[in-house]
Amino acid sequence: MSDFEAIGKEFVEFYYRTFDADRSGLSPLYRDMSMMSWEGVPFQGANNILEKLASLPFQRVAHKITTIDVQPSLPGITAAVIVVTGQLLVDEETKPQQYTQMFQLVEDNGYFIYNDVFRLNYA
Amino acid sequence: MSDFEAIGKEFVEFYYRTFDADRSGLSPLYRDMSMMSWEGVPFQGANNILEKLASLPFQRVAHKITTIDVQPSLPGITAAVIVVTGQLLVDEETKPQQYTQMFQLVEDNGYFIYNDVFRLNYA
Repeated sequence: MSDFEAIGKEFVEFYYRTFDADRSGLSPLYRDMSMMSWEGVPFQGANNILEKLASLPFQRVAHKITTIDVQPSLPGITAAVIVVTGQLLVDEETKPQQYTQMFQLVEDNGYFIYNDVFRLNYA
Repeated sequence: MSDFEAIGKEFVEFYYRTFDADRSGLSPLYRDMSMMSWEGVPFQGANNILEKLASLPFQRVAHKITTIDVQPSLPGITAAVIVVTGQLLVDEETKPQQYTQMFQLVEDNGYFIYNDVFRLNYA
């Protein structure tokens, strides 16, 4: 499991560093079969996912990771499920929003995101 | 995807109804290969998972689901990843705690939980 953990944590750090710098840079992480649920709305395929991310209504964003949990996914495939909880701050806002994001990361000639679920946590 | 959604939602409602009534009743949902991360601590196998759940230091608990997202997992297997955000109230407390829980549910002569990650969301 420790390999999974290291890969998962490295992935999460890379993901948010890229998201916060230039989210179009996330494009190589998604493929045609990738799925994303963004606040309950489903998107399928790298193009649709990247278009949605590009359309998000903020100029600047900073993610701060609180927890990362990684588990190996089903036997016989090289995949991991990853759950992140954290906070994000957009534009001029000073009150961070809590969020949860889950990824299923799959290895197949490099790693890509098969499942992606993003939710803000409303009190 | 709609089948996955219906199964996922039904599972989640059953899971928390059982958890809140008598968490030992969750036993049929876990198998030897099941994994649970509970607030960052890993448990493997139905016995260890049920023992951990039984040891949780509260008498009464009530989960209130805020969001459920379900996606089909990898091609070729009958599985779904499920992300829940919600609130829980234990014993005499009146201030609910926010939580996130992720399941990977697999069908193999009935459904069971392969991955389970639980986290409280601290502000």
